[in-house]
Amino acid sequence: MTDITEQKMTIPTYDDVLIAHERIKPYIHETPVLTSRFLNELTGAELFFKCENLQKAGAFKVRGASNAVFGLTEAEAAVGVATHSSGNHALSLSYAAGQRGIPVTVVMPRTAPQAKKDAVRGYGGTIIECEPSTSSREAVFAEVVAESGADFVHPYNDPRVIAGQATCSKELLSQVDDLDAVIAPIGGGGMISGTCLTLSTIAPQVKIYAAEPLNADDAARSFRAGHIIADDAPDTVADGLKVPLKDLTWHFVSNHVTDILTATEEEIVEAMKLVWKRMKIVIEPSSAVPLATILKNPELFRGKRVGVIITGGNVDLDKLPWLNN
Amino acid sequence: MTDITEQKMTIPTYDDVLIAHERIKPYIHETPVLTSRFLNELTGAELFFKCENLQKAGAFKVRGASNAVFGLTEAEAAVGVATHSSGNHALSLSYAAGQRGIPVTVVMPRTAPQAKKDAVRGYGGTIIECEPSTSSREAVFAEVVAESGADFVHPYNDPRVIAGQATCSKELLSQVDDLDAVIAPIGGGGMISGTCLTLSTIAPQVKIYAAEPLNADDAARSFRAGHIIADDAPDTVADGLKVPLKDLTWHFVSNHVTDILTATEEEIVEAMKLVWKRMKIVIEPSSAVPLATILKNPELFRGKRVGVIITGGNVDLDKLPWLNN
Repeated sequence: MTDITEQKMTIPTYDDVLIAHERIKPYIHETPVLTSRFLNELTGAELFFKCENLQKAGAFKVRGASNAVFGLTEAEAAVGVATHSSGNHALSLSYAAGQRGIPVTVVMPRTAPQAKKDAVRGYGGTIIECEPSTSSREAVFAEVVAESGADFVHPYNDPRVIAGQATCSKELLSQVDDLDAVIAPIGGGGMISGTCLTLSTIAPQVKIYAAEPLNADDAARSFRAGHIIADDAPDTVADGLKVPLKDLTWHFVSNHVTDILTATEEEIVEAMKLVWKRMKIVIEPSSAVPLATILKNPELFRGKRVGVIITGGNVDLDKLPWLNN
Repeated sequence: MTDITEQKMTIPTYDDVLIAHERIKPYIHETPVLTSRFLNELTGAELFFKCENLQKAGAFKVRGASNAVFGLTEAEAAVGVATHSSGNHALSLSYAAGQRGIPVTVVMPRTAPQAKKDAVRGYGGTIIECEPSTSSREAVFAEVVAESGADFVHPYNDPRVIAGQATCSKELLSQVDDLDAVIAPIGGGGMISGTCLTLSTIAPQVKIYAAEPLNADDAARSFRAGHIIADDAPDTVADGLKVPLKDLTWHFVSNHVTDILTATEEEIVEAMKLVWKRMKIVIEPSSAVPLATILKNPELFRGKRVGVIITGGNVDLDKLPWLNN
């Protein structure tokens, strides 16, 4: 609760999603939906892959970040935005701020991959380094915000961000008819919350599954326990999914998700390689978790039309998880 | 001239393309056109990537193969089809024949990658192995055709195949307006011939560039010499582009291509990795040659709207050319 303001705790509605979509359309791609006969035959389901790896900045996160950035008043925008993230949210917020031409500061651990740092700077972002610990990150970030007055755009626990991510399944529903289920990875829960927001409003018959690495299964355990359980430092190849749920995302997960399924590291890497090989798209490990869980739970999906959200494609091409293991 | 019949030497017309497109639509994807702001800024051009790596069987070759297979009479089809190829044409013809439920025999060198052999068999094809030499291949193939009476579908020097490949730029023109140029890789010249056939008929103002590895630049040398020059055994990472032009493809290349540009092995691998990294798609080395030549000849493309045909995405994910070099 410490990192969002009262104002931001507002639960976004589908009206916010409609506004968000109009607002961000000039800055995002309507990403294609791809299918694979091979994967359909393998799973017995009809899978519709919503390819946010082909999104600007390589991930769905640009939807929420753009909604936050372009929703600011001129006065707010002039002060700029800030966040802490070592991943796709950092890139996306930098991209969106660059599009609006406003300052953006990202607090990143000094150990973050050089490629990510380069990409943030490439989009015009300023990086402030912290030590790779929660305490250092929070202290440094508090300082940044205090000094600059920048608007904090949380990677997921922010209604503007969730409304932005919700535009992904809004698009998906306009591209594919009669879905029985949608499945997406779950880390902090931003994409799943957006998915819940859209589907519970305009397609409440569609089941919503979240997919999580077994090695970082705090959301699955939270779901069973009925309250948020946050792990300290989970270790998984799906590096985008290490963060815990927060109050806003927990609201959506606890109210609208049908189930949270998990997959092992090996299953995730195998599903990732399968998608690269068969679908010819570059996806990051996090994006492979849904397919891994579908392959593991065929009875849940057999004969069903399933939307599968491929969340991003930002990987280090020199260090692929199926090589040099 | 030995491997095509008189009947097949007919030069296909745009009417054949229209018929082909109607015929093959149920068996192919209308592949998406992707753009990259990063690559536009890098090249100074507006690039529109026609993604045949996302095509069925992972390459544009399924267009021509399907046109040949589904254009057969019932009696012809019952006898089946045959080809010699160790690459994408083998996969595509097997896929198309499998769709029609007819026999398909592929003569492949026994040294062909196991993955390719597995894929052909996965689509229901029968493989007859030959030694990795032209003489062995021709002898074995002649035997296969003599015994089975199968219809020979040449990988590129066949009007049915060229008319099928021509549907790719027909789609591209319906997806992108006002192109100034289209560029595609050139090996045997099937894709380039199809591109010439479509563009010279319905968009003659669009320039057509072919892109070739410097290590296998027989088409470029043929173009300058004014007659076909066939190399014996060129060696390039772009393994789809080693084959020489033949009479039908030479007809189109010599009449309609603006220029043939070349790139080194290093430039090809660099362009390939750049596409994977920035566009999040898996492309094979052959598909990277056009971008490599655009990067090398910016003055030709600056300020222009350029269609770039990504021909395929069939690579061995365990042996990427930028790793372990």
